Amino acid sequence: MKDKIIHAIQDEYEEDFAHCYGCGRLNEKGLHFRTGWLGDQTVTIFKPQEEHSAIPGFVYGGIIASFIDCHGTGSAALALHREKGYEPGDKVAPPRFVTARLHVDYLKPTPQDSPLRAIGRLEKLHPKRWKVHTEVFAGESLCAKGYVEAVVMPDTFKI
Amino acid sequence: MKDKIIHAIQDEYEEDFAHCYGCGRLNEKGLHFRTGWLGDQTVTIFKPQEEHSAIPGFVYGGIIASFIDCHGTGSAALALHREKGYEPGDKVAPPRFVTARLHVDYLKPTPQDSPLRAIGRLEKLHPKRWKVHTEVFAGESLCAKGYVEAVVMPDTFKI
Repeated sequence: MKDKIIHAIQDEYEEDFAHCYGCGRLNEKGLHFRTGWLGDQTVTIFKPQEEHSAIPGFVYGGIIASFIDCHGTGSAALALHREKGYEPGDKVAPPRFVTARLHVDYLKPTPQDSPLRAIGRLEKLHPKRWKVHTEVFAGESLCAKGYVEAVVMPDTFKI
Repeated sequence: MKDKIIHAIQDEYEEDFAHCYGCGRLNEKGLHFRTGWLGDQTVTIFKPQEEHSAIPGFVYGGIIASFIDCHGTGSAALALHREKGYEPGDKVAPPRFVTARLHVDYLKPTPQDSPLRAIGRLEKLHPKRWKVHTEVFAGESLCAKGYVEAVVMPDTFKI
Protein backbone atom coordinates (compact mmCIF):
# COMPACT_ATOMS: atom_id res chain seq x y z
CA MET A 1 0.00 0.00 0.00
CA LYS A 2 1.32 3.41 -0.92
CA ASP A 3 2.04 5.68 2.03
CA LYS A 4 2.21 9.04 0.31
CA ILE A 5 0.03 10.67 -2.33
CA ILE A 6 2.20 11.89 -5.22
CA HIS A 7 -0.37 13.81 -7.25
CA ALA A 8 -3.08 15.16 -4.97
CA ILE A 9 -6.06 17.05 -6.29
CA GLN A 10 -5.78 19.58 -3.46
CA ASP A 11 -2.36 20.66 -4.73
CA GLU A 12 -4.09 22.12 -7.75
CA TYR A 13 -7.19 23.80 -6.37
CA GLU A 14 -7.27 27.46 -7.28
CA GLU A 15 -5.83 29.66 -4.54
CA ASP A 16 -9.23 31.01 -3.48
CA PHE A 17 -10.32 27.42 -2.80
CA ALA A 18 -7.16 26.29 -1.02
CA HIS A 19 -7.87 27.61 2.49
CA CYS A 20 -10.00 24.71 3.76
CA TYR A 21 -9.23 23.71 7.37
CA GLY A 22 -9.36 20.08 6.28
CA CYS A 23 -7.51 20.07 2.98
CA GLY A 24 -6.34 23.56 2.10
CA ARG A 25 -2.64 23.72 1.30
CA LEU A 26 -2.72 27.45 2.17
CA ASN A 27 -4.36 27.02 5.60
CA GLU A 28 -1.35 27.12 7.92
CA LYS A 29 -3.26 25.68 10.88
CA GLY A 30 -5.19 23.10 8.86
CA LEU A 31 -5.01 19.33 8.57
CA HIS A 32 -3.67 19.18 5.00
CA PHE A 33 -5.54 16.12 3.78
CA ARG A 34 -4.36 15.15 0.27
CA THR A 35 -6.31 12.85 -2.04
CA GLY A 36 -5.23 10.94 -5.12
CA TRP A 37 -6.21 8.04 -7.35
CA LEU A 38 -5.57 4.42 -6.35
CA GLY A 39 -6.58 2.55 -9.50
CA ASP A 40 -10.24 3.43 -9.96
CA GLN A 41 -10.61 4.13 -6.24
CA THR A 42 -9.31 7.13 -4.30
CA VAL A 43 -7.08 7.38 -1.26
CA THR A 44 -6.28 9.95 1.43
CA ILE A 45 -3.66 9.37 4.12
CA PHE A 46 -3.42 11.21 7.44
CA LYS A 47 -1.34 10.85 10.56
CA PRO A 48 -3.33 12.16 13.53
CA GLN A 49 -1.49 14.47 15.88
CA GLU A 50 -1.47 14.09 19.63
CA GLU A 51 -4.23 16.66 20.13
CA HIS A 52 -6.61 14.80 17.78
CA SER A 53 -7.76 12.44 20.50
CA ALA A 54 -11.18 11.36 21.71
CA ILE A 55 -9.52 10.00 24.80
CA PRO A 56 -5.74 9.66 24.79
CA GLY A 57 -4.75 6.86 22.40
CA PHE A 58 -7.86 6.99 20.22
CA VAL A 59 -8.75 9.31 17.37
CA TYR A 60 -11.53 11.88 17.81
CA GLY A 61 -14.65 11.14 15.76
CA GLY A 62 -14.84 14.69 14.45
CA ILE A 63 -11.39 14.29 12.91
CA ILE A 64 -12.53 11.06 11.25
CA ALA A 65 -15.63 12.89 9.98
CA SER A 66 -13.42 15.69 8.64
CA PHE A 67 -11.16 13.11 6.99
CA ILE A 68 -14.14 11.48 5.24
CA ASP A 69 -15.49 14.92 4.33
CA CYS A 70 -12.43 16.23 2.48
CA HIS A 71 -11.67 12.79 1.07
CA GLY A 72 -15.16 12.91 -0.41
CA THR A 73 -14.95 16.35 -1.97
CA GLY A 74 -11.43 15.61 -3.22
CA SER A 75 -12.53 12.29 -4.72
CA ALA A 76 -15.46 13.90 -6.50
CA ALA A 77 -13.12 16.56 -7.90
CA LEU A 78 -10.74 13.84 -9.11
CA ALA A 79 -13.62 12.05 -10.83
CA LEU A 80 -15.08 15.04 -12.62
CA HIS A 81 -11.59 16.24 -13.56
CA ARG A 82 -10.89 12.82 -15.14
CA GLU A 83 -14.21 12.94 -17.00
CA LYS A 84 -13.00 16.18 -18.56
CA GLY A 85 -9.76 14.51 -19.59
CA TYR A 86 -7.44 15.72 -16.85
CA GLU A 87 -5.38 14.20 -14.06
CA PRO A 88 -3.67 15.82 -11.07
CA GLY A 89 -0.24 16.86 -12.26
CA ASP A 90 -1.60 18.26 -15.52
CA LYS A 91 -1.57 21.74 -13.97
CA VAL A 92 -5.17 22.41 -14.93
CA ALA A 93 -7.41 23.84 -12.21
CA PRO A 94 -9.84 21.12 -11.14
CA PRO A 95 -13.50 21.57 -10.20
CA ARG A 96 -14.18 22.36 -6.53
CA PHE A 97 -16.87 20.44 -4.68
CA VAL A 98 -18.59 21.10 -1.37
CA THR A 99 -20.33 18.66 0.93
CA ALA A 100 -24.11 18.39 0.87
CA ARG A 101 -24.38 15.32 3.10
CA LEU A 102 -22.00 13.42 5.35
CA HIS A 103 -22.58 10.13 7.11
CA VAL A 104 -20.21 8.18 9.35
CA ASP A 105 -20.58 4.84 11.10
CA TYR A 106 -17.91 4.37 13.76
CA LEU A 107 -17.19 0.65 13.81
CA LYS A 108 -14.51 0.44 16.47
CA PRO A 109 -12.20 2.74 18.45
CA THR A 110 -9.55 4.09 16.06
CA PRO A 111 -6.01 3.86 17.43
CA GLN A 112 -4.03 7.07 17.22
CA ASP A 113 -0.58 5.62 16.65
CA SER A 114 -0.77 4.66 12.99
CA PRO A 115 -1.59 6.60 9.82
CA LEU A 116 -5.20 6.52 8.69
CA ARG A 117 -6.17 5.65 5.14
CA ALA A 118 -9.49 6.59 3.58
CA ILE A 119 -10.37 4.51 0.53
CA GLY A 120 -13.15 5.83 -1.70
CA ARG A 121 -15.46 4.34 -4.29
CA LEU A 122 -17.24 6.76 -6.58
CA GLU A 123 -20.89 6.82 -7.56
CA LYS A 124 -22.14 9.48 -9.96
CA LEU A 125 -25.60 10.66 -8.90
CA HIS A 126 -25.78 13.55 -11.35
CA PRO A 127 -23.12 15.33 -13.46
CA LYS A 128 -22.62 17.79 -10.61
CA ARG A 129 -23.37 15.50 -7.64
CA TRP A 130 -21.25 12.50 -6.66
CA LYS A 131 -21.50 10.07 -3.78
CA VAL A 132 -18.20 8.85 -2.36
CA HIS A 133 -18.41 5.65 -0.34
CA THR A 134 -15.48 5.60 2.05
CA GLU A 135 -13.80 3.15 4.40
CA VAL A 136 -11.27 4.33 6.97
CA PHE A 137 -8.47 1.98 8.01
CA ALA A 138 -5.89 2.25 10.78
CA GLY A 139 -3.25 -0.21 9.64
CA GLU A 140 -5.30 -3.13 8.30
CA SER A 141 -8.20 -2.52 10.67
CA LEU A 142 -11.45 -1.11 9.28
CA CYS A 143 -12.45 1.44 11.94
CA ALA A 144 -15.11 3.58 10.28
CA LYS A 145 -17.12 3.76 7.10
CA GLY A 146 -19.36 6.38 5.62
CA TYR A 147 -20.17 8.48 2.62
CA VAL A 148 -20.22 12.00 1.34
CA GLU A 149 -22.55 13.48 -1.22
CA ALA A 150 -20.53 16.22 -2.87
CA VAL A 151 -21.81 18.89 -5.22
CA VAL A 152 -20.00 21.34 -7.45
CA MET A 153 -19.57 24.51 -5.40
CA PRO A 154 -22.64 26.71 -5.89
CA ASP A 155 -22.40 30.44 -6.50
CA THR A 156 -23.81 31.07 -3.01
CA PHE A 157 -20.42 30.01 -1.64
CA LYS A 158 -18.57 32.71 -3.48
CA ILE A 159 -17.93 36.04 -1.85
CA MET B 1 -31.25 33.39 23.48
CA LYS B 2 -28.49 32.69 25.97
CA ASP B 3 -24.99 33.21 24.63
CA LYS B 4 -22.97 31.31 27.20
CA ILE B 5 -23.43 27.92 28.81
CA ILE B 6 -23.27 28.24 32.60
CA HIS B 7 -23.29 24.59 33.63
CA ALA B 8 -21.74 22.47 30.89
CA ILE B 9 -21.57 18.70 31.14
CA GLN B 10 -18.01 18.73 29.79
CA ASP B 11 -16.84 20.72 32.83
CA GLU B 12 -17.53 17.64 34.92
CA TYR B 13 -16.24 14.75 32.84
CA GLU B 14 -13.64 12.77 34.72
CA GLU B 15 -10.11 13.88 33.88
CA ASP B 16 -9.34 10.76 31.82
CA PHE B 17 -12.29 11.67 29.58
CA ALA B 18 -11.55 15.39 29.30
CA HIS B 19 -8.95 15.34 26.51
CA CYS B 20 -11.29 15.24 23.51
CA TYR B 21 -10.21 17.49 20.63
CA GLY B 22 -13.79 18.65 20.29
CA CYS B 23 -14.93 19.14 23.86
CA GLY B 24 -12.13 18.29 26.27
CA ARG B 25 -11.42 21.05 28.77
CA LEU B 26 -7.90 19.60 29.23
CA ASN B 27 -7.04 19.54 25.50
CA GLU B 28 -5.05 22.74 25.10
CA LYS B 29 -5.32 22.74 21.31
CA GLY B 30 -8.94 21.62 21.18
CA LEU B 31 -12.20 23.35 20.29
CA HIS B 32 -13.70 23.38 23.80
CA PHE B 33 -17.34 22.80 22.89
CA ARG B 34 -19.54 23.10 26.01
CA THR B 35 -23.07 21.72 26.21
CA GLY B 36 -25.89 22.49 28.61
CA TRP B 37 -29.64 22.26 29.02
CA LEU B 38 -32.02 24.70 27.36
CA GLY B 39 -35.37 23.68 28.83
CA ASP B 40 -35.80 20.08 27.71
CA GLN B 41 -33.51 20.66 24.74
CA THR B 42 -29.73 21.04 24.76
CA VAL B 43 -27.48 23.77 23.43
CA THR B 44 -23.83 24.17 22.46
CA ILE B 45 -22.34 27.48 21.35
CA PHE B 46 -19.13 27.93 19.35
CA LYS B 47 -17.36 30.84 17.72
CA PRO B 48 -15.36 29.54 14.74
CA GLN B 49 -11.81 30.80 14.47
CA GLU B 50 -10.30 32.20 11.30
CA GLU B 51 -8.63 28.90 10.39
CA HIS B 52 -11.93 26.99 10.57
CA SER B 53 -12.90 27.96 7.03
CA ALA B 54 -14.09 25.96 4.03
CA ILE B 55 -13.31 28.94 1.89
CA PRO B 56 -12.63 32.26 3.61
CA GLY B 57 -15.86 33.54 5.15
CA PHE B 58 -17.63 30.19 5.45
CA VAL B 59 -17.28 27.50 8.09
CA TYR B 60 -15.64 24.18 7.21
CA GLY B 61 -18.04 21.24 7.12
CA GLY B 62 -15.75 19.09 9.24
CA ILE B 63 -15.95 21.65 12.04
CA ILE B 64 -19.75 21.59 11.79
CA ALA B 65 -19.63 17.78 11.92
CA SER B 66 -17.37 17.97 14.98
CA PHE B 67 -19.75 20.47 16.59
CA ILE B 68 -22.72 18.14 16.05
CA ASP B 69 -20.64 15.19 17.24
CA CYS B 70 -19.65 16.57 20.66
CA HIS B 71 -23.01 18.29 21.06
CA GLY B 72 -24.51 14.82 20.61
CA THR B 73 -22.35 12.98 23.10
CA GLY B 74 -22.66 15.85 25.57
CA SER B 75 -26.45 15.92 25.20
CA ALA B 76 -26.72 12.17 25.74
CA ALA B 77 -24.57 12.50 28.86
CA LEU B 78 -26.82 15.31 30.14
CA ALA B 79 -29.89 13.15 29.57
CA LEU B 80 -28.63 10.02 31.28
CA HIS B 81 -27.19 12.11 34.12
CA ARG B 82 -30.63 13.70 34.64
CA GLU B 83 -32.27 10.28 34.58
CA LYS B 84 -30.01 9.35 37.47
CA GLY B 85 -31.06 12.46 39.36
CA TYR B 86 -28.14 14.75 38.64
CA GLU B 87 -27.54 18.04 36.87
CA PRO B 88 -24.30 19.72 35.80
CA GLY B 89 -23.12 21.72 38.76
CA ASP B 90 -23.88 18.92 41.20
CA LYS B 91 -20.19 17.90 41.09
CA VAL B 92 -21.03 14.29 40.34
CA ALA B 93 -19.09 12.66 37.50
CA PRO B 94 -21.48 12.18 34.58
CA PRO B 95 -21.59 9.22 32.18
CA ARG B 96 -19.33 9.50 29.11
CA PHE B 97 -20.72 8.69 25.68
CA VAL B 98 -19.01 8.02 22.37
CA THR B 99 -20.40 8.38 18.87
CA ALA B 100 -21.62 5.33 17.00
CA ARG B 101 -23.18 7.17 14.06
CA LEU B 102 -23.06 10.74 12.78
CA HIS B 103 -25.13 12.28 10.00
CA VAL B 104 -25.05 15.85 8.71
CA ASP B 105 -27.09 17.57 6.01
CA TYR B 106 -25.51 20.88 5.01
CA LEU B 107 -28.41 23.15 4.10
CA LYS B 108 -26.61 26.33 3.17
CA PRO B 109 -23.15 27.88 3.43
CA THR B 110 -22.48 28.73 7.08
CA PRO B 111 -21.10 32.24 7.62
CA GLN B 112 -18.02 32.40 9.78
CA ASP B 113 -18.61 35.75 11.44
CA SER B 114 -21.22 34.85 14.01
CA PRO B 115 -21.35 32.27 16.82
CA LEU B 116 -22.90 28.92 15.96
CA ARG B 117 -25.58 27.35 18.11
CA ALA B 118 -26.41 23.66 18.08
CA ILE B 119 -29.86 22.86 19.47
CA GLY B 120 -30.53 19.23 20.35
CA ARG B 121 -33.64 17.13 20.86
CA LEU B 122 -33.18 13.83 22.65
CA GLU B 123 -34.55 10.44 21.70
CA LYS B 124 -33.81 7.44 23.90
CA LEU B 125 -33.20 4.36 21.75
CA HIS B 126 -32.01 2.14 24.60
CA PRO B 127 -30.86 2.88 28.18
CA LYS B 128 -27.29 3.15 26.87
CA ARG B 129 -27.96 4.49 23.35
CA TRP B 130 -29.45 7.91 22.63
CA LYS B 131 -30.16 9.70 19.38
CA VAL B 132 -29.64 13.46 19.42
CA HIS B 133 -31.40 15.36 16.64
CA THR B 134 -29.53 18.61 16.10
CA GLU B 135 -30.01 21.84 14.22
CA VAL B 136 -27.12 24.27 13.72
CA PHE B 137 -27.85 27.97 13.49
CA ALA B 138 -25.64 30.91 12.57
CA GLY B 139 -27.57 33.85 13.98
CA GLU B 140 -31.20 33.00 13.13
CA SER B 141 -30.28 31.06 10.00
CA LEU B 142 -30.60 27.26 10.01
CA CYS B 143 -27.44 26.16 8.18
CA ALA B 144 -27.14 22.43 8.92
CA LYS B 145 -29.04 19.66 10.61
CA GLY B 146 -28.15 16.15 11.57
CA TYR B 147 -28.05 13.59 14.30
CA VAL B 148 -25.73 11.57 16.45
CA GLU B 149 -26.35 8.13 17.88
CA ALA B 150 -24.32 8.08 21.07
CA VAL B 151 -23.55 5.06 23.24
CA VAL B 152 -22.12 4.78 26.71
CA MET B 153 -18.37 4.40 26.28
CA PRO B 154 -17.55 0.69 25.91
CA ASP B 155 -14.66 -0.95 27.73
CA THR B 156 -12.80 -1.30 24.40
CA PHE B 157 -12.18 2.43 24.58
CA LYS B 158 -10.32 2.20 27.84
CA ILE B 159 -6.58 1.77 27.87
